[in-house]
Amino acid sequence: MKKIAVVLSGCGVYDGTEIHEAVLTLLAIDNNGAQYQCVAPNIRQRQVVNHLTQQVSDEVRNVLVESARIARGKIKDIATVKAEDFDAAIFPGGFGAVMNLSDFAEKDVNCELEENTLKFVKALYAAKKPLGFACISPVLAAKICDAGIKLTIGNDPEMAKKLQAMGAEPEDCSAENIVVDSSHNVVSTPAYMLGKGPAEIYQGIDAMVRHILLIA
Amino acid sequence: MKKIAVVLSGCGVYDGTEIHEAVLTLLAIDNNGAQYQCVAPNIRQRQVVNHLTQQVSDEVRNVLVESARIARGKIKDIATVKAEDFDAAIFPGGFGAVMNLSDFAEKDVNCELEENTLKFVKALYAAKKPLGFACISPVLAAKICDAGIKLTIGNDPEMAKKLQAMGAEPEDCSAENIVVDSSHNVVSTPAYMLGKGPAEIYQGIDAMVRHILLIA
Repeated sequence: MKKIAVVLSGCGVYDGTEIHEAVLTLLAIDNNGAQYQCVAPNIRQRQVVNHLTQQVSDEVRNVLVESARIARGKIKDIATVKAEDFDAAIFPGGFGAVMNLSDFAEKDVNCELEENTLKFVKALYAAKKPLGFACISPVLAAKICDAGIKLTIGNDPEMAKKLQAMGAEPEDCSAENIVVDSSHNVVSTPAYMLGKGPAEIYQGIDAMVRHILLIA
Repeated sequence: MKKIAVVLSGCGVYDGTEIHEAVLTLLAIDNNGAQYQCVAPNIRQRQVVNHLTQQVSDEVRNVLVESARIARGKIKDIATVKAEDFDAAIFPGGFGAVMNLSDFAEKDVNCELEENTLKFVKALYAAKKPLGFACISPVLAAKICDAGIKLTIGNDPEMAKKLQAMGAEPEDCSAENIVVDSSHNVVSTPAYMLGKGPAEIYQGIDAMVRHILLIA
């Protein structure tokens, strides 16, 4: 049975992992006969956002601990897992991808990835294992992959320019679809960059998972 | 378009709503052409559990604010919504159902429902609008529905005894299936009382949503 790492960045669209994207990724993996393991960095969240008011709160939360909510407790510190134990990895979206897994929210195109996340994803990429990116998380791929990588981040021209500045080749794509870079085994889908609801984004996420399992 | 209230109780299986059950309920509603509105009581969580260690923490969190994470911010205080604005309501599981929406975790068969949750669900039940309950949440139905109501809570004999003590008629059921009480328009599914993963519980949740839409 193929085993996919799902890389989480907290629990909630405004300060962590987008919850629908994460759960629907787990559903698609399970539905398509593969296994998943949730992983996340054991670091402090960049910020905590009250999702009712969208105000930043003064609470302190930990990315691994909050991600464990989505994983029902079954999660590993990304610093402790090895690329060779997985056939592929998928990054759901949410602001956690650009605030916790990287500092893109602050440093924009000059961003860096969180240390242990970088180590894990670089090892998978070097081993040519398939990588999937949903929503805003393709900025991580633009940072770590070879120049010219094909990625989608929906159809936002501003975001497309940023991906280009990072060396990627952005392509427009609808929420139900995926963009595949066959030479680098990288698949992406816009999810909630464009999607109106769970049914729409599930089509794109399921297509991403199916393609990853096909080539893994 | 039919409109279903999804009643949340926080964000995480050990102190709030079971996240997979909630998201898969939203997916099933959206997939089957209906609309959802997430609602939750604006009260303090009974407790906050670290989902990595399963230890109770000394943090203070609010049920409505944490539920807003699952709802991507689009949630209403259950005290402010009216039964007449909905065609049905669904209660996902998670310990929040027995710690925040009710005090079953503490008072067992002598539990009471949270004041505004009780008001809302009683009004829906009185209007014979369909109600759906997943996982542990059928204890809420046992409390508010007429004696003799048919419900499932999986196949745990201890839990079955408790439902009986509350006047209900528990029936064993697998995670992919539902139990329907046609005279009271109540549908239930075991979800993670029994389910091994999201694919399995989605079958039961989707069947529950379809049946509710059929009779709503």
